[in-house]
Amino acid sequence: MPQISNLGSRMPSSPIRKLAPLAVEAKKEGVKVYHLNIGQPDLPTPQKGLDALKAVTRKTLEYSPSEGYPGLREKLVGYYKKYGIDVSADEIIVTCGGSEAILLGFLTCLNPEDEIIMVEPGYANYISFAKTAHITVKTVTSRIEEGFKLPPVEAFEKAITPRTKAILLCNPSNPTGYVYTPEELQKIKEIVVKHDLFLFSDEVYREFVYNGKPYLSAMQLGIPENVIMLDSVSKRYSECGIRIGMLVTHNKQVHDTVMKFCQARLSPPLLGQIVAEASIEGTEEYSKECFDEYKARRDFFIKGLNEIPGVYSPMPEGAFYTVASLPVEDTEAFCRWLLTDFRLNGETVMMAPAAGFYSTPGLGKNQVRMAYVLKEEDLAKALKILRAALATYKDLH
Amino acid sequence: MPQISNLGSRMPSSPIRKLAPLAVEAKKEGVKVYHLNIGQPDLPTPQKGLDALKAVTRKTLEYSPSEGYPGLREKLVGYYKKYGIDVSADEIIVTCGGSEAILLGFLTCLNPEDEIIMVEPGYANYISFAKTAHITVKTVTSRIEEGFKLPPVEAFEKAITPRTKAILLCNPSNPTGYVYTPEELQKIKEIVVKHDLFLFSDEVYREFVYNGKPYLSAMQLGIPENVIMLDSVSKRYSECGIRIGMLVTHNKQVHDTVMKFCQARLSPPLLGQIVAEASIEGTEEYSKECFDEYKARRDFFIKGLNEIPGVYSPMPEGAFYTVASLPVEDTEAFCRWLLTDFRLNGETVMMAPAAGFYSTPGLGKNQVRMAYVLKEEDLAKALKILRAALATYKDLH
Repeated sequence: MPQISNLGSRMPSSPIRKLAPLAVEAKKEGVKVYHLNIGQPDLPTPQKGLDALKAVTRKTLEYSPSEGYPGLREKLVGYYKKYGIDVSADEIIVTCGGSEAILLGFLTCLNPEDEIIMVEPGYANYISFAKTAHITVKTVTSRIEEGFKLPPVEAFEKAITPRTKAILLCNPSNPTGYVYTPEELQKIKEIVVKHDLFLFSDEVYREFVYNGKPYLSAMQLGIPENVIMLDSVSKRYSECGIRIGMLVTHNKQVHDTVMKFCQARLSPPLLGQIVAEASIEGTEEYSKECFDEYKARRDFFIKGLNEIPGVYSPMPEGAFYTVASLPVEDTEAFCRWLLTDFRLNGETVMMAPAAGFYSTPGLGKNQVRMAYVLKEEDLAKALKILRAALATYKDLH
Repeated sequence: MPQISNLGSRMPSSPIRKLAPLAVEAKKEGVKVYHLNIGQPDLPTPQKGLDALKAVTRKTLEYSPSEGYPGLREKLVGYYKKYGIDVSADEIIVTCGGSEAILLGFLTCLNPEDEIIMVEPGYANYISFAKTAHITVKTVTSRIEEGFKLPPVEAFEKAITPRTKAILLCNPSNPTGYVYTPEELQKIKEIVVKHDLFLFSDEVYREFVYNGKPYLSAMQLGIPENVIMLDSVSKRYSECGIRIGMLVTHNKQVHDTVMKFCQARLSPPLLGQIVAEASIEGTEEYSKECFDEYKARRDFFIKGLNEIPGVYSPMPEGAFYTVASLPVEDTEAFCRWLLTDFRLNGETVMMAPAAGFYSTPGLGKNQVRMAYVLKEEDLAKALKILRAALATYKDLH
């Protein structure tokens, strides 16, 4: 039997999804599982997006242009303008989710063995995409006791080697909810310029900043040749399943090279583009409602978490995640046990063990990432289950 | 300004799509362009698939499972059974088009510098995906004067080195339309077993075999651990835009490893899965009509091609492409000229220069790949334009 590749062997399982089979088993037994593990909002997709599907009159669901439909890209230009981001439609490439934008960005900008600096804890799948492109991830560590703020600029300088080619920021951060300040971004800009790096900026949670301060996009830093913005409609319109993301850059060489990869995979999803385009305009009311809802959920959930003995979560300023520490030694074992053994009134909770969001071995073992994307009533139940489970687990171990 | 990756620099432009900007320009001038360059059928998507879109009642367009919805995979089990392919739903992974299935298959099975043997001319994007995975493509050449039949087994043996890890076949072949005989497949099987290789089998044109002989899938060769079938609903239901493909294998290690990549990119397109699932059952009549239509188009188009002085096309036995030789030295220059300079009654033709479908430099320079996916009336016009263009071009050069 032929052997699989080394890359395949080394590829990590997603910490967000690897426990999914256990959840499936639990559900088969009739157990209700509250999914705090994944940023799958329960809010509805904008009605305009859903209506656009019903209004499809084309008879052939044909390929779209490799870069995405001009209509969608034009709408995005207007959307970005509202956030002070000035781009043209031909600087936007529509991808199959933000995921594809990340991978194609990496493949385009970094050679195998080149290094990219990321903040840990970070979105786990960045690591997978980096491995896929055979690039090396160096991490600078943000700490729960400091509210996961950006590590000092010296930490970045220390991580830089002659092979460093890029820095990646997720702002607001998945998984910590931290929002970088304009001052922090200025410091990052200085490093980027000094070392002639690419700056990947994942801004899919742009709309969810709860601290009342103005949000600065990397696209506004005045380093147009360095910045590659990664984006997606998934979260802001609660339409994760349509797989529509974007890669946006003023750097023409990067744009044109990403396009060669895009031509090879032919086109982004047609139907998703139709929904996304309809979701962008005239949905200000919808966006306001989502924002208020997430903010309320955040306030409710983080307060509830911190009331559980031994649990600590900083107050996230953006996105809809938090990384919290639990009074257990190994959250992976605990998360598994929740799915396989623990039920409270026939219900349990699924969370993502946070170790998978760190690169440094041993870090985050007592932390979990949780998404507060469920309605308050469900979050309340999840909190109750978590509290009871921790008490039971403590007695058992 | 930071430099892009070597991979990015070396990535070829798609021979199918790289002339697209010229076609866009021509259309802006009001020129009608007949697209023979791309396998984008003009036949309608099954009404059942279109109706499924209107029937979507979910309010949140959420992530689907990374492996695709069970309902779709179960329907595919039934579909494959009709073709004598015996697989279970958990041996099927739904991908973002056949394109993603190819890339993930390569990443899973081959290390950088490992070698894969393909037949040339071959589907150009295989080369792009191989480059993306840093694997080396060795080609064995099929020849137009032999109707592009499988090169003798000795050619494969000669191409094998200690780094050979896989063979890839496209059956029926894009771009030549050749259908491999059961005897040829047996020979391939022997090589695969002898050298312990993976066999990638791209069978997206399975339904379009016009030679009246039974079609053998690589899944029926009795080497379950070696075969990875690549598939897609794009062509058979004329729904290329929904981006639904599949990777199918009995090899559990390969399956589970592909799944790790799939978890990283979260999920295949939700809406496409809904359309695909509805397209599979109760569409036998539709499939019969498509088959008859393509067969009639093939007969009409190939006859017409061979009537043009200096043009030669073998009779393709399957799929809906042909590679034809033209009486010009460099078809890329000719194809460009068609888009930029030649119009017949305000119309022109777009074709894919065939050199991009060969790996061996210099081969195929006088050939083009054409898709006969337009209705007969349009094919007739395209033939007329091609005939006139060749006459004019000859006078000019």
